[in-house]
Amino acid sequence: MRAAVMRNKKLIAADVPLPEPGPGEVLVKSLACGICGSDLHALKHADKLVESSKRSGAAFVMDLSRDIVMGHEFCAEIADFGPGTQKRLKAGSRVCSFPALIRATGIEAVGYSNENPGGYAEYMRLTEALLLEVPNGLSTEHAALTEPMAVGFHAVQKAMLTNQDAPLVIGCGPVGLAVIAGLKLTGQHPIVAADFSPRRRELALKVGADAVIDPKEKSPFESWKEMAVYKDPSKAPPMPPWMPGPPLRPAVIFECVGVPGVIESIMASAPRNARIVVVGVCMERDSFEPMLGISKELNVQFVLGYTPEEFALTLSNIAEGKINTGPLITGKVGVEGVAQAFEDLASPERHAKIIVEPWRS
Amino acid sequence: MRAAVMRNKKLIAADVPLPEPGPGEVLVKSLACGICGSDLHALKHADKLVESSKRSGAAFVMDLSRDIVMGHEFCAEIADFGPGTQKRLKAGSRVCSFPALIRATGIEAVGYSNENPGGYAEYMRLTEALLLEVPNGLSTEHAALTEPMAVGFHAVQKAMLTNQDAPLVIGCGPVGLAVIAGLKLTGQHPIVAADFSPRRRELALKVGADAVIDPKEKSPFESWKEMAVYKDPSKAPPMPPWMPGPPLRPAVIFECVGVPGVIESIMASAPRNARIVVVGVCMERDSFEPMLGISKELNVQFVLGYTPEEFALTLSNIAEGKINTGPLITGKVGVEGVAQAFEDLASPERHAKIIVEPWRS
Repeated sequence: MRAAVMRNKKLIAADVPLPEPGPGEVLVKSLACGICGSDLHALKHADKLVESSKRSGAAFVMDLSRDIVMGHEFCAEIADFGPGTQKRLKAGSRVCSFPALIRATGIEAVGYSNENPGGYAEYMRLTEALLLEVPNGLSTEHAALTEPMAVGFHAVQKAMLTNQDAPLVIGCGPVGLAVIAGLKLTGQHPIVAADFSPRRRELALKVGADAVIDPKEKSPFESWKEMAVYKDPSKAPPMPPWMPGPPLRPAVIFECVGVPGVIESIMASAPRNARIVVVGVCMERDSFEPMLGISKELNVQFVLGYTPEEFALTLSNIAEGKINTGPLITGKVGVEGVAQAFEDLASPERHAKIIVEPWRS
Repeated sequence: MRAAVMRNKKLIAADVPLPEPGPGEVLVKSLACGICGSDLHALKHADKLVESSKRSGAAFVMDLSRDIVMGHEFCAEIADFGPGTQKRLKAGSRVCSFPALIRATGIEAVGYSNENPGGYAEYMRLTEALLLEVPNGLSTEHAALTEPMAVGFHAVQKAMLTNQDAPLVIGCGPVGLAVIAGLKLTGQHPIVAADFSPRRRELALKVGADAVIDPKEKSPFESWKEMAVYKDPSKAPPMPPWMPGPPLRPAVIFECVGVPGVIESIMASAPRNARIVVVGVCMERDSFEPMLGISKELNVQFVLGYTPEEFALTLSNIAEGKINTGPLITGKVGVEGVAQAFEDLASPERHAKIIVEPWRS
């Protein structure tokens, strides 16, 4: 079958073996698969990713000397059934799935794997028990956005917001947009978001931000402060008289950039007691001054992925129109176009999410 | 008056002007003042401390071109009263105080200050409203341990332990010992602690650790794992069948070392979902791999200081014998001996806490 393959740390279109579904698994045809920023990182920083997987004691570490077919943001169609399957859904059904296989020997990744090709290939194998049917009326390409939107939903869950908290989203690429959509579901306002790109700020407003900031024009933290003042001062906690300025709601800052230096710059600008949720995936080494965190008693919560329940709820939220995925898809390519799409995604003005359709010729 | 003075980034014994108590302030005689690891850091990394105070928007930044008299872990005796004082406590009363002045113009540090000498001088000025009388029967030198023990108590409060959490303390210097004492007050067991120094491990057991580990012999995290298994497996949360090993109680790891590299090494070894409480005060730049935090969804809570309520409760806990401060004091010096004491504290085998008695000749 045709696939966009990571081979010798380069992305090429090539023929790879059709995967065989094991016990309890189905063979599916990849209908649409989003390109994730983590895939761009994984290609650019493959060695570092492998090294840090090893260091953190990860169960699976990719072997870069062998082919890897990435793609974990997919919507697929059931093509065939492996042994011992229940056939709860019929062949031809459109499905989404948590991108992992549950096997007797353990859990295995789909996509970041030498064994289990992801959605940049024509076919994949998936665990039948994890399949979620795509509701009627939801387009295939928007169903494929379940995975990235679940990342934002999960980050917001991990932030454990109270109704006093005032969120600030730093970076409005696909991760930041998913976080904004996740915040919108909580009913929390105002949702303040910052990005250098006018295009991304426009998308941020469309998915649910109440205010967007261009950091070139004004500090996101200064703008946040103006909006985080208690509207009803009687709800503010008592403040010692020597504290400057009006009392502000607690800050919850979502780091959605994922490049070195951003965590520290947020730590330097964050108000006292702020919680920083690191959603951006930085695969490089980073540095910081612990004193910035200590002197303000900051909290840093690193997050990754989502639970199967959060994934299922996100598919349902998209189908019911509670998450506005409409404006996010900005391009579509076949297998041969994936390498170029990886290049194009570097420009924030042109693209948000590019969908790979491996069946396209 | 005589004082141990930080002058030109060196510690010397010198004469400095007697401070004058302002409105609502008292003049006190410093009876005993502990040497804090932060004072050692502040002397060694004075420039970095000033730079990072500026960066984090601190209200007060020390001027290193002028004298600074450190010392914030003190027990003192009321000597005289400034204008407008209530005289609730009589002259001659022994007192402890949150090491800060509350003034009409704002809050000011005592010790890390160009204006307000700390307990390494014969006299200090303190805010009358913050004075806590030392209970009868509590020795002056143990009352002086209120401040460092409050740091550990606060760190444990910020960790918001549930009765499931299994704590691990990395580093058993004065900060780690205070954290262990704070953990003991919660009734949480086992309290596992690690330090390379046999002397410090012995002290850790005395203040409340259930088990101590020499990291040269065994990884603290491996030892912790053995002790963090649920004794009653029916209380463990359900685990997917492919997860290796028995379910472990949630890890709360206290970083009590405060030198570059420790936060990252804890992140590398910590189990999934661990909460890391950074109590050690590292004043240098540090580096880390965000992926270590991301892949395990770690939480890092930086902490500093304590509230006035925590400070008062700690004094009372020491007086009532709930905190065993008995073994902590390992030396006493006068003003002339402070510089040497700073040197001596570098050896973990010799000292835990050295008390400065500025009235000594």
